[in-house]
Amino acid sequence: MKTFERNGMMQVLRGERVTKLPVWLMRQAGRYLPEYQAVRSEHDFFSMVRTPKVATEITLQPIRRFKLDAAIIFSDILVVPQALGITVLMEEKKGPIIPIPIRSAADVAALSIDGFESRMQYLSDSVGLTARTLDGECPLIGFAGSPWSLFAYAVEGSGKKSFAAAKAFLYNEPQLSQTFLALLTEGAIRCLKVQIAAGASVVQLFESWGSLLSPTDYERLVLPHIQKIVKEIEPLCPLILFVRGNPAVTDMLAQVTNAPIGIDYTVDLPRMRARFPTRILQGALDPTVLLGPAAEIKKQTHSMLESLGKDNLIANLGHGILPEVKPEAVATFVEAVREF
Amino acid sequence: MKTFERNGMMQVLRGERVTKLPVWLMRQAGRYLPEYQAVRSEHDFFSMVRTPKVATEITLQPIRRFKLDAAIIFSDILVVPQALGITVLMEEKKGPIIPIPIRSAADVAALSIDGFESRMQYLSDSVGLTARTLDGECPLIGFAGSPWSLFAYAVEGSGKKSFAAAKAFLYNEPQLSQTFLALLTEGAIRCLKVQIAAGASVVQLFESWGSLLSPTDYERLVLPHIQKIVKEIEPLCPLILFVRGNPAVTDMLAQVTNAPIGIDYTVDLPRMRARFPTRILQGALDPTVLLGPAAEIKKQTHSMLESLGKDNLIANLGHGILPEVKPEAVATFVEAVREF
Repeated sequence: MKTFERNGMMQVLRGERVTKLPVWLMRQAGRYLPEYQAVRSEHDFFSMVRTPKVATEITLQPIRRFKLDAAIIFSDILVVPQALGITVLMEEKKGPIIPIPIRSAADVAALSIDGFESRMQYLSDSVGLTARTLDGECPLIGFAGSPWSLFAYAVEGSGKKSFAAAKAFLYNEPQLSQTFLALLTEGAIRCLKVQIAAGASVVQLFESWGSLLSPTDYERLVLPHIQKIVKEIEPLCPLILFVRGNPAVTDMLAQVTNAPIGIDYTVDLPRMRARFPTRILQGALDPTVLLGPAAEIKKQTHSMLESLGKDNLIANLGHGILPEVKPEAVATFVEAVREF
Repeated sequence: MKTFERNGMMQVLRGERVTKLPVWLMRQAGRYLPEYQAVRSEHDFFSMVRTPKVATEITLQPIRRFKLDAAIIFSDILVVPQALGITVLMEEKKGPIIPIPIRSAADVAALSIDGFESRMQYLSDSVGLTARTLDGECPLIGFAGSPWSLFAYAVEGSGKKSFAAAKAFLYNEPQLSQTFLALLTEGAIRCLKVQIAAGASVVQLFESWGSLLSPTDYERLVLPHIQKIVKEIEPLCPLILFVRGNPAVTDMLAQVTNAPIGIDYTVDLPRMRARFPTRILQGALDPTVLLGPAAEIKKQTHSMLESLGKDNLIANLGHGILPEVKPEAVATFVEAVREF
């Protein structure tokens, strides 16, 4: 495995001090880039994910433009439910659709972890090809969705706002829910291991739907699964835990693990840093600031970095880049971090 | 004005201790009730809001069923933009649509506060008729949307997830945004005053979209408007400040005002109570728990009440009732509060 001795992101993750803050952006390979749209117009979403040459090309696009400190493999959190036997479609503008959602014990029983790695072969190939193509320029980040976020999509069937079906299932089928969450946890662990084995130097767990649960329920129903993932992955490579939209869950994960924490833009940054003064934090500019003028982007980026301090920090957004953002705005953000 | 000497909600708001916790539910008059659906099938949404007899009937429906400690007038936060001259439609299942969103100085200049009270006459009539019909049974709550939540809808044009247009406008047109926010603030204040004059004993300000802003931006761009509302309304009647989905903003409002605070289900309840030990708090059961079995509803309600303590508390959900909830689940929640 490459050590990336002089890469800022890996230095921060090893606990070293850096003179230049590392920076990457969630969803940096995506719809806001015209070169992404050009590829997208010729393929459907999951074909892109499943074709290593295409996934590699898309992963590298933002690295070429912005000289970022890390690439993140072009994939999707729903590849894990797919590899367990759940059909997932990606509808343009609507997001992911699961035409036959999980609603019963029979639905869960029909899923299988057997042969999981062979069904993830394309991901192994994509990560391997991307890492070789990067040739030491910067580390490659692998990722997986948290079992709860995968559960929410798989039971609901889509990304609806209230997730009423997923929540009803959680409360009405407590044992079956735990069985399914355990299966998704195993899938997430194996998915991360596949990527680490193939050349990912860092991995991130995305808790995209932590906001659907009260802190109490999260602790009771989901946290043990997260702890299992941390236990299995931490000895292998750095694992960043990112939670969207629920500062209480972010805080909980920071308390019960020593993992680097990805924070979202709703978190009170000075208080977060005060509570966890030496923790490696990642984040957390409001991604919609990139819709504003350059002066505003610089001002808010500097203010964010001042709040979090320049040690033990990986600069990033507090959520993925929006498709409406102009590539120039991303360049301004990166420049604002570099000059800090 | 009626004093409601023996009503638990008013007692808590006056700082008195109660032996029986007061309880009401956000969106208690709504789609989960078959008697609401029966009325709804014969009217469009804003006709219901604008017809005092119908609004009164709907407001009273949950009081008859559940003997709650407060009624809340059937209305919508978007009546304020409407009264300022913005067209708002309510599309079944899609939510509110603003066909001509606010995008320019001319759009803002075309709005007017003149004659606002006469355009709110129907709301005055509805509140008056409902208060008279309640005849002292319980107090009536009036409400308004926070200027930021109204801004987000009015600029975006609908309740889309990313609110990219609203955020872009906020950052690219800072002065115009402040002008528009100030107008919406004036509208919200007048809307609350109309309801207080007509017989509302309590009012609540709904910050439905506080989650769209970082705490830093909220403090800088929105908080002064909220403080103006607090200053104008607090001398007249109790004002509850409710924020959805952004615990950092909830905390900020609790710090800078003495107002009763409505909290949502993503807040860490024991920490909130520890930080504000004597503040009047309202909330905060995860509304999706009402989709679960009765035993789960009782257990979670009791756990929520234990976390917040029985003093200075108004029991409620941490967000509105979902249309999928069965009325029996609401009865179970109310019973769980009563027996605490």
